[in-house]
Amino acid sequence: LRKGFAEIVYCPGKSDEQLENIARALANTKENVLFSRAAPHQYEVVLSILHDAYYHEKAKMIGIKRRETQTTVTGLTVVSAGSSDIPVAEEAAVTAEYMGCAPKRLYDIGIAGLHRLLAHIETLQSSLAIVAVAGMEGALPSVLAGLVSCPVIGVPTSTGYGANLSGVAPLLTMLNSCATGVSVVNIDNGLGAGYLAGRIVLQSTN
Amino acid sequence: LRKGFAEIVYCPGKSDEQLENIARALANTKENVLFSRAAPHQYEVVLSILHDAYYHEKAKMIGIKRRETQTTVTGLTVVSAGSSDIPVAEEAAVTAEYMGCAPKRLYDIGIAGLHRLLAHIETLQSSLAIVAVAGMEGALPSVLAGLVSCPVIGVPTSTGYGANLSGVAPLLTMLNSCATGVSVVNIDNGLGAGYLAGRIVLQSTN
Amino acid sequence: LRKGFAEIVYCPGKSDEQLENIARALANTKENVLFSRAAPHQYEVVLSILHDAYYHEKAKMIGIKRRETQTTVTGLTVVSAGSSDIPVAEEAAVTAEYMGCAPKRLYDIGIAGLHRLLAHIETLQSSLAIVAVAGMEGALPSVLAGLVSCPVIGVPTSTGYGANLSGVAPLLTMLNSCATGVSVVNIDNGLGAGYLAGRIVLQSTN
Amino acid sequence: LRKGFAEIVYCPGKSDEQLENIARALANTKENVLFSRAAPHQYEVVLSILHDAYYHEKAKMIGIKRRETQTTVTGLTVVSAGSSDIPVAEEAAVTAEYMGCAPKRLYDIGIAGLHRLLAHIETLQSSLAIVAVAGMEGALPSVLAGLVSCPVIGVPTSTGYGANLSGVAPLLTMLNSCATGVSVVNIDNGLGAGYLAGRIVLQSTN
Amino acid sequence: LRKGFAEIVYCPGKSDEQLENIARALANTKENVLFSRAAPHQYEVVLSILHDAYYHEKAKMIGIKRRETQTTVTGLTVVSAGSSDIPVAEEAAVTAEYMGCAPKRLYDIGIAGLHRLLAHIETLQSSLAIVAVAGMEGALPSVLAGLVSCPVIGVPTSTGYGANLSGVAPLLTMLNSCATGVSVVNIDNGLGAGYLAGRIVLQSTN
Amino acid sequence: LRKGFAEIVYCPGKSDEQLENIARALANTKENVLFSRAAPHQYEVVLSILHDAYYHEKAKMIGIKRRETQTTVTGLTVVSAGSSDIPVAEEAAVTAEYMGCAPKRLYDIGIAGLHRLLAHIETLQSSLAIVAVAGMEGALPSVLAGLVSCPVIGVPTSTGYGANLSGVAPLLTMLNSCATGVSVVNIDNGLGAGYLAGRIVLQSTN
Amino acid sequence: LRKGFAEIVYCPGKSDEQLENIARALANTKENVLFSRAAPHQYEVVLSILHDAYYHEKAKMIGIKRRETQTTVTGLTVVSAGSSDIPVAEEAAVTAEYMGCAPKRLYDIGIAGLHRLLAHIETLQSSLAIVAVAGMEGALPSVLAGLVSCPVIGVPTSTGYGANLSGVAPLLTMLNSCATGVSVVNIDNGLGAGYLAGRIVLQSTN
Amino acid sequence: LRKGFAEIVYCPGKSDEQLENIARALANTKENVLFSRAAPHQYEVVLSILHDAYYHEKAKMIGIKRRETQTTVTGLTVVSAGSSDIPVAEEAAVTAEYMGCAPKRLYDIGIAGLHRLLAHIETLQSSLAIVAVAGMEGALPSVLAGLVSCPVIGVPTSTGYGANLSGVAPLLTMLNSCATGVSVVNIDNGLGAGYLAGRIVLQSTN
Ligand SMILES: Nc1ncnc2c1ncn2[C@@H]1O[C@H](COP(=O)(O)O)[C@@H](O)[C@H]1O
Ligand SMILES: Nc1ncnc2c1ncn2[C@@H]1O[C@H](COP(=O)(O)O)[C@@H](O)[C@H]1O
Ligand SMILES: Nc1ncnc2c1ncn2[C@@H]1O[C@H](COP(=O)(O)O)[C@@H](O)[C@H]1O
Ligand SMILES: Nc1ncnc2c1ncn2[C@@H]1O[C@H](COP(=O)(O)O)[C@@H](O)[C@H]1O
Ligand SMILES: [Mg+2]
Ligand SMILES: [Mg+2]
Ligand SMILES: [Mg+2]
Ligand SMILES: [Mg+2]
Ligand SMILES: [Mg+2]
Ligand SMILES: [Mg+2]
Ligand SMILES: [Mg+2]
Ligand SMILES: [Mg+2]
Repeated sequence: LRKGFAEIVYCPGKSDEQLENIARALANTKENVLFSRAAPHQYEVVLSILHDAYYHEKAKMIGIKRRETQTTVTGLTVVSAGSSDIPVAEEAAVTAEYMGCAPKRLYDIGIAGLHRLLAHIETLQSSLAIVAVAGMEGALPSVLAGLVSCPVIGVPTSTGYGANLSGVAPLLTMLNSCATGVSVVNIDNGLGAGYLAGRIVLQSTN
Repeated sequence: LRKGFAEIVYCPGKSDEQLENIARALANTKENVLFSRAAPHQYEVVLSILHDAYYHEKAKMIGIKRRETQTTVTGLTVVSAGSSDIPVAEEAAVTAEYMGCAPKRLYDIGIAGLHRLLAHIETLQSSLAIVAVAGMEGALPSVLAGLVSCPVIGVPTSTGYGANLSGVAPLLTMLNSCATGVSVVNIDNGLGAGYLAGRIVLQSTN
Repeated sequence: LRKGFAEIVYCPGKSDEQLENIARALANTKENVLFSRAAPHQYEVVLSILHDAYYHEKAKMIGIKRRETQTTVTGLTVVSAGSSDIPVAEEAAVTAEYMGCAPKRLYDIGIAGLHRLLAHIETLQSSLAIVAVAGMEGALPSVLAGLVSCPVIGVPTSTGYGANLSGVAPLLTMLNSCATGVSVVNIDNGLGAGYLAGRIVLQSTN
Repeated sequence: LRKGFAEIVYCPGKSDEQLENIARALANTKENVLFSRAAPHQYEVVLSILHDAYYHEKAKMIGIKRRETQTTVTGLTVVSAGSSDIPVAEEAAVTAEYMGCAPKRLYDIGIAGLHRLLAHIETLQSSLAIVAVAGMEGALPSVLAGLVSCPVIGVPTSTGYGANLSGVAPLLTMLNSCATGVSVVNIDNGLGAGYLAGRIVLQSTN
Repeated sequence: LRKGFAEIVYCPGKSDEQLENIARALANTKENVLFSRAAPHQYEVVLSILHDAYYHEKAKMIGIKRRETQTTVTGLTVVSAGSSDIPVAEEAAVTAEYMGCAPKRLYDIGIAGLHRLLAHIETLQSSLAIVAVAGMEGALPSVLAGLVSCPVIGVPTSTGYGANLSGVAPLLTMLNSCATGVSVVNIDNGLGAGYLAGRIVLQSTN
Repeated sequence: LRKGFAEIVYCPGKSDEQLENIARALANTKENVLFSRAAPHQYEVVLSILHDAYYHEKAKMIGIKRRETQTTVTGLTVVSAGSSDIPVAEEAAVTAEYMGCAPKRLYDIGIAGLHRLLAHIETLQSSLAIVAVAGMEGALPSVLAGLVSCPVIGVPTSTGYGANLSGVAPLLTMLNSCATGVSVVNIDNGLGAGYLAGRIVLQSTN
Repeated sequence: LRKGFAEIVYCPGKSDEQLENIARALANTKENVLFSRAAPHQYEVVLSILHDAYYHEKAKMIGIKRRETQTTVTGLTVVSAGSSDIPVAEEAAVTAEYMGCAPKRLYDIGIAGLHRLLAHIETLQSSLAIVAVAGMEGALPSVLAGLVSCPVIGVPTSTGYGANLSGVAPLLTMLNSCATGVSVVNIDNGLGAGYLAGRIVLQSTN
Repeated sequence: LRKGFAEIVYCPGKSDEQLENIARALANTKENVLFSRAAPHQYEVVLSILHDAYYHEKAKMIGIKRRETQTTVTGLTVVSAGSSDIPVAEEAAVTAEYMGCAPKRLYDIGIAGLHRLLAHIETLQSSLAIVAVAGMEGALPSVLAGLVSCPVIGVPTSTGYGANLSGVAPLLTMLNSCATGVSVVNIDNGLGAGYLAGRIVLQSTN
């Protein structure tokens, strides 16, 4: 039950040999495949076996598109607070793309400059699901959830230092959101958020 | 922008006087209202002003139903692991009811006895959203997400002792879920989970 | 060097006898005195000795005004996110009042409803110092500091539950603020924030 | 009292010189010896002195088999949730082998796919002791203990990221297991689990 | 699969009504039943329905003995470090008694006075399993495991103050034991330790 | 609203390409610009585009001075406890310089030798704001605040080891200061403290 | 080996019956006895059996003086930062008194007012051991150790709130002391500090 | 007031230039000097300026002996639990040597093998101060303090993994010691322990 994917492979710590074995086992799958947190040279390894593998550099993901996704579905918006949060945001966006979504990307619109966020209010309010990626103090999902009515999936990132505690600070911020409609995934887990938001958008459209 | 509610009032720490003022201000609202974590005597206070107030005992919630919700929508399932987790599960279920949902309740089917959970597999697999409430080690949402394809909202509870750390242990468990499709809300936050799951179900049905 | 106060007495844990001794020692002081976190009956004890003692109920503070503060100085704004944060906000406001300030109070304008906050933008932008009191996720000081140019003193409160960790969550949020101009005091420490903000306003006006 | 081993040497941080001295001191022992967490080049060092040293690559262990273990004893099962947990699982399995056990290995059968686990139900239910190795959310030992009646030794691993907190999350999960029959060892401590489970199996068979 | 018990009921937080329902459902069971952490008045409630209920005061447990346990099995030793740890030690001992064991109790023999511990060295070294209950610094299981060869189940208790952190300190101590043969259960979880040790002893004797 | 700066750029994790883009966008700004935590080679990158960029080595900051700051304002004192805290102290001092301040620097005058601190008592007592930078136990801001009446901004640093917990220990120390007049910024956040203190000094002088 | 005491009894959690048994067992001892953290009514219980029991109210200790301590030894100074720290300071002082010491008490001389501390510099510099008791930020031992050459035993107290974390903040402060000559005992452990300092003074005088 | 040392320099993070400046300033001191945690090449730097500098390799300390310490004083024993703890133990021993002590070293006698510790009981019981260095679970100081009557200074080390939490586990263990006579210094702080123990021994001998 991979829910639309043949497999989602987590690359860190996997040897080239392990990756090759995994790639070989997927040679003839009819479902899409994602490799997350893949280093460039791990892409080479996978590509040598799966010739239709594509490397999404910013997201550090390898994708194998085997299933013709019917039509690209709108309604998903991926927002990032800072520019350091973009890799995590891309992980979410790419994941949803392989599910058949066409996410809008609104990057670097954190709460230190509210006007940048308010400039996109219409896009935000017409979304069916929002992935909100933020490090530092992680207040973005709360502020967003106060402005929209669709589900907001918060993704805390490990961007920051000191009392950021490698992402624990924005994680706690998001869990304590006083605005309703926010739920949270693990620190830096763009994949989980993208999958979940994609799922909600697809359900809400069909 | 209360998203279907005129107000959701958090009762702990509020004086009778404060509650009276809030209740008076809501006298003529045309939207539904919820008071969460309300002690029985706080219900008396609210009832003396809002005569259509109803007390949901297990959920410790006061509800004022003003908006005729069109038709009761199915697709939401609220699951609890242990019997101590029921108050939090009820908070989720009642919240969704005031949004127009008719949640199914599956209580006390935690993972220590998998057969009890597997007995409900069809209900679970046909859900549009699941709220999974669990204390102790909090493994229920992960196990569920491995069995279904709809979104699973995990609610860790403070049920447990020692290394449970007042709910931090199941919170971490749920955040680290290795199954895709799980997102998490604050410890004991049935309200937030119920609202979010209700939102997803309504979106997916309309 | 009590900096304008003869003494600031922290009441919790002090016996009636200890309070009486402290009060007697202050009988003839020419400086103002504050007793913080004073229970109603502790006020009785102090009043029986210092007949000019006044009880600020919401702030739970006893004040003795001995020094004729020259003129009430404007420029300090005390903001609270929720209604449960008011006691801490009042502690800040009352402290500054005894230093000669006339703080503006803007309560219950947290970020879940940005419009309530933006309605006061002129007051906020013309302040010389802002005390921003917030529990739950504690995002208020960050949002404010993005809108104003004066110093913002953040006071995290212990309002919340679960992953709020008795105020540690909003404390971390404020420390990680990505907007410049925010500094932080201890959880629930309205007194420290009020003193500091009062100090800045007085310096900036003289 | 090394309980069947002449010595179990922990290699990290030991200089080549220290290892040589330890190896020399063990030259004539009649008991088995294990070196744990040994880097490949540390094996060279030990091998240059103890010519019967064998390197268990996956377990990163060096073994010296001096005592003829009577007969290989069955009843121990070593289970791993993911493929990243295999090194720790191997540490457990190899340790038990040097005690005279013949462990069954069931790897990569974590709870995200219950069917893979349930496929081995007979092996599991006929075990005398199970070592259950899991990172991420660490729910495997709980689920297993709900299915079997023998002791389950949980080994949390540091596999994961973010709120995994380097293995603290699965450690807490296992400590809070609501199924009886689970006990826990330190994060990544395959050796301790393998020793303990081996001990239980040997006791239960003799 | 309750493994010898019809049910093990955790009493804290259960209403009288809930307990009555549980008791009624167990009226005709042929297996033993335990209620843990039962307040004296909860015993009254259970006794009013199950007339063969017995209250183990020190262990705060209610027991219903329905299955004639064949013969009392020796080999289990329950050790406590201090006298404040006795309730947890009793919980372990009583649990094992209902499984058919006859545990030896060695209480108040912590490491501050090694001679008291060494006085029992023969009992300890001939055990098949030891439950070692300790609060404060929790060093007892480590010291014991250095002296015996059977499995030692460590139970940290919340006895202590300050840096004891409600039992987290002895929990960490036990998890880091440098002696092999120690595994750990949750803080104050005498029940889990007693069950596990009983299981090991029964397996090792049959 | 960058409050006197066109931009303050946080360099860690930014690629050369990202820095080039940022630099290009700032080519014609009329406001000052700061790049914080810039590695030497990142300075090269910026310099190649902004030819008036200057590298403040000790502070690891790149500065672009575009706005003729009217006159250098006195009243700010930057104090460091140890010599390892100097980089953070310099970050504060340089930030304030770009705002128009002329900070006094008093370095290596921590509390282990009170005489060194007391030797500067006059400078300290005539300051309008003090930035106090300290690692290890972080007691400097408390001691200072007991001696002066102006605001003290504490900056905990990650200097130390073990129970220092990467700066969490001095952070807690400063938050708990029993002297009034102390507020705190994030660990190693010289920039935030310098900005805030500069702001206070400028306000207090105009 | 109670080192000068027949027994030191920790009273919290002990039933009257347990205390009576302990008291009876000590009836004829020739060594001194201390009961720490004794509630007033626990004194009654002990007194009914040991008629020479004395209650040290501020220290919450019961003392039985059986051994004629040769002569009262000077050289120990017990210092407290605030008035809330006095009970812990008294626990230290009384413990040392029963060992034959005549401690000097310097209370309420914390670092917020350095002059109060410096007024006692001669007493401090001629001490053979100092017990320094402090809550809040706990900087007192560090400041003292910078002024004297004898050993300083730091005792963090749980006085404070919020980020004080029940004494963890001053504990960390003391452990990170950058002045040599400081060691630390558990939060609120006046007894341990008094014993240790008494031991050092006695050794240094004999 | 360096108390017998002209200076004790902490080397990590110091540039060669900084070390050279420090060394030059110490050229003509008549007191001893220590440089702690010095890398080999930092020794070269210091040696090039101070030609009587000596490198204590195991302790990673550079020593400059300028003061003829009268006579070497016995009574100090430095104990280590494991062989990985030796560098910290050496830091303590060398520090005391420069104060005029002749410490006995008892290494690798941790509690996993009590006999090794008991073999040295006479040396231990005749000591005037003991430094007890231990990582892993850190139980050594407690066990020692139960056997001797002199002060025991516990030094937790960062030796270990997982739930060792970089030395926090043994730190907590030592702080919670239920044996009287133990005090604690920071993780890996051999220098602080050696200085303190040396101080006690010197005081007790003069
Ligand atoms: N049980 C609950 N858990 C989390 N948030 C809640 C709960 N009940 C009400 N709220 C939210 O808390 C806020 C109430 O704040 P207040 O102004 O203090 O009444 C609103 O934003 C509600 O949506
Ligand atoms: N609410 C408060 N929060 C923080 N510090 C306080 C508070 N009230 C008084 N203080 C400070 O606490 C100290 C009082 O300590 P004590 O000697 O115990 O009365 C003084 O330094 C006061 O400035
Ligand atoms: N991987 C391991 N995890 C936990 N303990 C170990 C491991 N390997 C060896 N040990 C134990 O660590 C101790 C080795 O200490 P030493 O070699 O003296 O530093 C012995 O008590 C071993 O039983
Ligand atoms: N003292 C205890 N500690 C840990 N688990 C317990 C204890 N008592 C009962 N249990 C378990 O907790 C669960 C009880 O859940 P419930 O009664 O449904 O809330 C069962 O799985 C019991 O085996
Ligand atoms: Mg940006
Ligand atoms: Mg149940
Ligand atoms: Mg509100
Ligand atoms: Mg797998
Ligand atoms: Mg005892
Ligand atoms: Mg210095
Ligand atoms: Mg005071
Ligand atoms: Mg060893």
